[in-house]
Amino acid sequence: VLGIGDDAAVMAVPKGQQLVVTMDTLVAGRHFPGNTLPEDIGYKSLAVNVSDLVAMAATPFYFLLSITMPNADEDFLRGFSQGLFEAANEFAIPLVGGDTCKGPLSISIQASGLVDEGRFVTRRGAKPGDKIMLSGVVGAAALGLDSMQTKLRLNASQQAFCENALNRPQPRVDLIELLKKYAHSAIDISDGLIADIGHILQQSAVGAILDKYKIPAYEALADYQRYDYALNGGDDYQVAFTVAPDIFAELLQVAQQSGITLYEIGEITDSGYLMKEGATMRDLANFRGFDHFGS
Amino acid sequence: VLGIGDDAAVMAVPKGQQLVVTMDTLVAGRHFPGNTLPEDIGYKSLAVNVSDLVAMAATPFYFLLSITMPNADEDFLRGFSQGLFEAANEFAIPLVGGDTCKGPLSISIQASGLVDEGRFVTRRGAKPGDKIMLSGVVGAAALGLDSMQTKLRLNASQQAFCENALNRPQPRVDLIELLKKYAHSAIDISDGLIADIGHILQQSAVGAILDKYKIPAYEALADYQRYDYALNGGDDYQVAFTVAPDIFAELLQVAQQSGITLYEIGEITDSGYLMKEGATMRDLANFRGFDHFGS
Repeated sequence: VLGIGDDAAVMAVPKGQQLVVTMDTLVAGRHFPGNTLPEDIGYKSLAVNVSDLVAMAATPFYFLLSITMPNADEDFLRGFSQGLFEAANEFAIPLVGGDTCKGPLSISIQASGLVDEGRFVTRRGAKPGDKIMLSGVVGAAALGLDSMQTKLRLNASQQAFCENALNRPQPRVDLIELLKKYAHSAIDISDGLIADIGHILQQSAVGAILDKYKIPAYEALADYQRYDYALNGGDDYQVAFTVAPDIFAELLQVAQQSGITLYEIGEITDSGYLMKEGATMRDLANFRGFDHFGS
Repeated sequence: VLGIGDDAAVMAVPKGQQLVVTMDTLVAGRHFPGNTLPEDIGYKSLAVNVSDLVAMAATPFYFLLSITMPNADEDFLRGFSQGLFEAANEFAIPLVGGDTCKGPLSISIQASGLVDEGRFVTRRGAKPGDKIMLSGVVGAAALGLDSMQTKLRLNASQQAFCENALNRPQPRVDLIELLKKYAHSAIDISDGLIADIGHILQQSAVGAILDKYKIPAYEALADYQRYDYALNGGDDYQVAFTVAPDIFAELLQVAQQSGITLYEIGEITDSGYLMKEGATMRDLANFRGFDHFGS
């Protein structure tokens, strides 16, 4: 109704729809390495927020931006804006307001989405017996981070793939309809697969058994290392969700028709958090994932 | 509908209402001096966002918080939360989500309000002949800033008043109904009176004559200095608004009944930006206000 240029913007929320709101801040050196391109910073800042909307089965509606930077650096701003608006176009979400200020580089984005009344998906709906589904390969973004920070060397094509996974995460907007229709619970993988599925278990008061070798770990390294990245690495922005076992076959069929590959990686149980590794069982109950205040 | 603890929160927007959205970031050393109490940082961060809603005649609805700080400092967080929730209670606006991350201290808040459909007030509606109204004393917050930074000394009671004006700004939620009913245009005074009224003139494509000695400048210093603070100082969060001359008398009466004092400080004209100083006229056209990237 009213966009940028006033104290606030005005939005009309369509009848029968609810508003889904999320907000994430990205800090230089913390959420992206210092050598990240401004274009990628712009793109990713929006993408990670859109991913939170996807995890609730919400369709992108609008976003607000607040950017803090040391100086009014025109080159940076040009690149940043290009990446930001590339993502805004791709995910069909308009910028409606925000502010700019001086300080150490950080970007806050508040994104809002719409869902039909009561049709949102949360972390709270997982039920014992549910299948745990994952929307794609994990571990590549964390490998990309170590590659950009020269902690390891990948071959050229792996490097390109992994750094792109890190810098240009693709929120799974193609899953929104499937999630709305089939998911009991959902979360996007931002902190790491084990940690994020742990959030579903905690909020739903249930347990789970994961099947390690069903998890689509990005294949760059020897087994022991790739699973470390796949299970603990953050920033992949795939979606983990749970569905009732009796609609599992239908879900796979519908997904296939839409060209979407889904991976069944485990099952919801009454309690506990375990991972099957071939013939052995590992306890994940005391696992600690990526900590935003950690080392 | 759904609050903190998921990827996003869900809000039901009442029928016939529109959503007004704003977002502001406060950076340590830039928007508050380093010696500001955590309680005051918490309070002010929310207050300035609520003030943006007030300027649009929107009633506070919800807010999201993203806080970046160097360490998980419990003392800071306790104080910050206390001030934040004090403001949240006072202005009747619930926190529904957000995130915390590590980095140089800064606080981003996105606040949303509600207005009856089409009843919001913008910077664009000022008309030649409109009276320019101001909701209260200006200049105290800027004096408070210089006092906290020991650039000047005030007496004890002035110091207390001015530093409180800076650290605990009072968004004029009491004006929302009046603005909705009477205002052609409105803005909150965050950058300075001359600069902010300048925004109304620019957006409305009109001019103005201000009457300097009708402006309620905080009375601490000799004339030449207090008007400098009153005209150019930011952070007062009073509201400047314009009303048709024929409802002026009614407005004053209604305001008085609600215990609200309003100051008539000038008039909207076709073009130009002037200030009457007794018998002389000063041109404000090339005036530059507080610049967030300035010195």
